[in-house]
Amino acid sequence: MSKTNTEALEKGLAFTPRFAADGTIPAVATDVETGDVVMLAYMNEASLRQTIETGIATYWSRSRQSLWVKGETSGNRQHIVAMRTDCDQDALWITVRVEGHGASCHRGYHSCFYRAVPTEIVGAGTVGENVPLEFCEAEPVFNPSTVYGKKS
Amino acid sequence: MSKTNTEALEKGLAFTPRFAADGTIPAVATDVETGDVVMLAYMNEASLRQTIETGIATYWSRSRQSLWVKGETSGNRQHIVAMRTDCDQDALWITVRVEGHGASCHRGYHSCFYRAVPTEIVGAGTVGENVPLEFCEAEPVFNPSTVYGKKS
Repeated sequence: MSKTNTEALEKGLAFTPRFAADGTIPAVATDVETGDVVMLAYMNEASLRQTIETGIATYWSRSRQSLWVKGETSGNRQHIVAMRTDCDQDALWITVRVEGHGASCHRGYHSCFYRAVPTEIVGAGTVGENVPLEFCEAEPVFNPSTVYGKKS
Repeated sequence: MSKTNTEALEKGLAFTPRFAADGTIPAVATDVETGDVVMLAYMNEASLRQTIETGIATYWSRSRQSLWVKGETSGNRQHIVAMRTDCDQDALWITVRVEGHGASCHRGYHSCFYRAVPTEIVGAGTVGENVPLEFCEAEPVFNPSTVYGKKS
């Protein structure tokens, strides 16, 4: 990319999101109440437009290859409080107010990031092949079987 | 993926990050002081291992195709305070304490997400082709020309 284009992309006042080869851009969602990152999902051009126009987070489901109004089934819709883009406009950060249970994960947790690498491991030198996780959210906020129906 | 594998992936206590076809996994970094999302970058298996072992955020630069210890030039290293993974283990969330200027963007801003889609546009219905941005960080924290040297 030429310097002029980089300047426009990084210092300009035009929103020109750069979608990856598969037509998507990653969108980080944080909860306005807790500040937590609650999910990382993807938008394509149509879902980004719908998100801006409706103010409700709408993603592109890469697995289902379809528009995905987050929370349509569970009631946990995400209302956009703020939408930012990064320096080279290949990522989005949305701050959301979550309706319903206030949970964003299909597993019923507040955040999809409900497990952590134990802090005593991080920065402590060589790790083996097996790195453990620990739960950092105690309990799901809702029961997925009840909300989505039991999957066979 | 079979149900058993999904259960292990999403409810288990083994860290089994799922790298994309290009060998990378997206990592969202938030600042422990401000709670802001400061960048979205990518790690490959080697950089993730180095991050865990050293406690310093180390990414994989997709443009340079090399390990990238964030802040090595600017002094703005990111110390890992917490590292989490999401439900299907295809994304990471790291909370960091930033050394030096406390800025994470190569443009000198605290956060790479220094521009926003104006809130009055979001949720207000049809938008045209041209969506504007506005700055949400007033001034860079450091001068990139001074820190990185002027690029020709």
